Amino acid sequence: MDVRAAVALEAGKPLEVMTVQLEGPRAGEVLVEIKATGICHTDAFTLSGADPEGLFPAILGHEGAGVVVEVGAGVSSLKPGDHVIPLYTPECRQCEYCLNPKTNLCQAIRETQGKGLMPDGSSRFSIDGKPILHYMGTSTFANYTVLPEIALAKIRPDAPFDKVCYIGCGVTTGVGAVVNTAKVEPGSNVVVFGLGGIGLNVLQGARMVGANKIIGVDLNNERKALGEKFGMTHFVNPKEVEGDLVPYLVSLTGGGADYSFECIGNVNTMRQALECCHKGWGVSVIIGVAGAGQEISTRPFQLVTGRSWRGTAFGGARGRTDVPKIVDWYMDGKIAIDEMITHIMPLEDINKGFDLMHAGKSIRSVVLY
Amino acid sequence: MDVRAAVALEAGKPLEVMTVQLEGPRAGEVLVEIKATGICHTDAFTLSGADPEGLFPAILGHEGAGVVVEVGAGVSSLKPGDHVIPLYTPECRQCEYCLNPKTNLCQAIRETQGKGLMPDGSSRFSIDGKPILHYMGTSTFANYTVLPEIALAKIRPDAPFDKVCYIGCGVTTGVGAVVNTAKVEPGSNVVVFGLGGIGLNVLQGARMVGANKIIGVDLNNERKALGEKFGMTHFVNPKEVEGDLVPYLVSLTGGGADYSFECIGNVNTMRQALECCHKGWGVSVIIGVAGAGQEISTRPFQLVTGRSWRGTAFGGARGRTDVPKIVDWYMDGKIAIDEMITHIMPLEDINKGFDLMHAGKSIRSVVLY
Repeated sequence: MDVRAAVALEAGKPLEVMTVQLEGPRAGEVLVEIKATGICHTDAFTLSGADPEGLFPAILGHEGAGVVVEVGAGVSSLKPGDHVIPLYTPECRQCEYCLNPKTNLCQAIRETQGKGLMPDGSSRFSIDGKPILHYMGTSTFANYTVLPEIALAKIRPDAPFDKVCYIGCGVTTGVGAVVNTAKVEPGSNVVVFGLGGIGLNVLQGARMVGANKIIGVDLNNERKALGEKFGMTHFVNPKEVEGDLVPYLVSLTGGGADYSFECIGNVNTMRQALECCHKGWGVSVIIGVAGAGQEISTRPFQLVTGRSWRGTAFGGARGRTDVPKIVDWYMDGKIAIDEMITHIMPLEDINKGFDLMHAGKSIRSVVLY
Repeated sequence: MDVRAAVALEAGKPLEVMTVQLEGPRAGEVLVEIKATGICHTDAFTLSGADPEGLFPAILGHEGAGVVVEVGAGVSSLKPGDHVIPLYTPECRQCEYCLNPKTNLCQAIRETQGKGLMPDGSSRFSIDGKPILHYMGTSTFANYTVLPEIALAKIRPDAPFDKVCYIGCGVTTGVGAVVNTAKVEPGSNVVVFGLGGIGLNVLQGARMVGANKIIGVDLNNERKALGEKFGMTHFVNPKEVEGDLVPYLVSLTGGGADYSFECIGNVNTMRQALECCHKGWGVSVIIGVAGAGQEISTRPFQLVTGRSWRGTAFGGARGRTDVPKIVDWYMDGKIAIDEMITHIMPLEDINKGFDLMHAGKSIRSVVLY
């Protein structure tokens, strides 16, 4: 079938909106009509050419929501008409990882997904007979896409696509880091580095679980008012702190953060995030993705005296199980999404969404098909 | 009173065995007759002058066992005749740290302890009227010493002093890192870097809790037979591995260690210990103390893909609560100590104990008073 897609033809060039061909679902696969998709920094990272694993030509996009149109042979958990959110971290419920309660990193289709292919080693997208690659197993920058059954979370039908698409990445990554990875307890003091599309969700995750001080750290003062909407109790602009940031944060938290989160991808702030943690029990969680080859450092004394250094991907969420719960939290008013979606545009304007993100003018732009 | 002590008069010099004066216990303090003490690397580290916090003249020693002789005003949990193990990490059960179940790092007397003084800011040891400093709050290289009540674990009277003194540091540090800090589960695969006085105790801690593969890593092939006595199932000498050590260990563990422990104090092996952990859930625990100013590094990707980097001090043990339990484990045959105590000597020969340790000829030398 013909579908409309924004195609990344090569690194460093804008996306090109064009008509491409999509094959129907094979065994274990599902054809989904994408109704809305967010534009995330990870898409821009790959498009820029900085992602060492980026492949072209490809159809990017990994933060979508849509409706099942057709299911391939053997698909039992989904049927046409079901509302779904694509999962770049699938949940097969059978691999060594899915069977270990300590991780969400299902490995069932990791190899082919990393190559931009479906689990059988081929692509469903093509143009003039030449294959176009999938991306993160999702490719939501097309109005129809094919995914493995294990990479789709079935959600309630009354959730609005143009909002819950954000749960496909940013919301789950931020809220999940608090709830699943750090397991922040009520009354904890929390420090969040970077108040972008992930950091704001960490803030509201911390608010939801009853954290005490929720401190946001950002170089942009405009993020103060925004952060406060999502539960931030204190704003710190490192440029305006006299002296070192770490002792300032330790003092502000009365001894150090119980939990800190790095949502920037900067190895220097990762170190600050660890070292502002409370002696004895502080846990620092890395969410941001650092540049290729960059390294984090600290004195081992920081760990020997009780701090822990961790990381998280997709908020530690098992997508098929946890994403529907997060949709419920949104529908029940426990978390906010509407206020983070600053721009809505048709597919034809998708490159404007990237421009807004690079200029720091948007929190989330959403393409509505 | 006159007591016999091995005094560290200055950095880099052997200890001098001499008669010094010891004042009786003040309020909240306890006079203990030390019956036996181990000689640990930490004593040697301070004596060498490499410890930036080392102070002289001082009476070193922190791995002792003895009998209560006299208690000061207000002491309620101990009485003359009680058998005790001195605790360099006390347990006041009242400070912010003791009241937080996530840490064992009681801070009640930390400041004065770090200065070589009793909690009231003075020393009980002197020679010719000039004060000699305490060390780690314990000073077990004297046949009598004074400690705060909160720095003494009361143990069963039938436990032999010349063995259970080792529980005052090495045994608890190694076994406790497994039991309290990592909480290793039965069936886990464990890698231990460095098979000295701590590493061997990590091995037997892993055996006690039912670990599956227990892999010891050491440059000294003589440690193979020794490690096997304490539960090691596989020995790896990095010098004899073709290619890189980390992928070798990942392969040997079938995907990576569930838990790794660094018992050397080398920042390079600390990195290897982290990176040989299993993706998704591997936890690496730093026990060894690195040189001043040295730093650990890794790519943040290691953490984002699910590995955790932690540390531990005194095996995460709350001394007054946990040390008596470890004494029971020894008396019940769940852990071994006798085989690790390779040399016994009178106080007069204590410098020989240091020589044996530096030459790698002893696991533990014990001074029997």
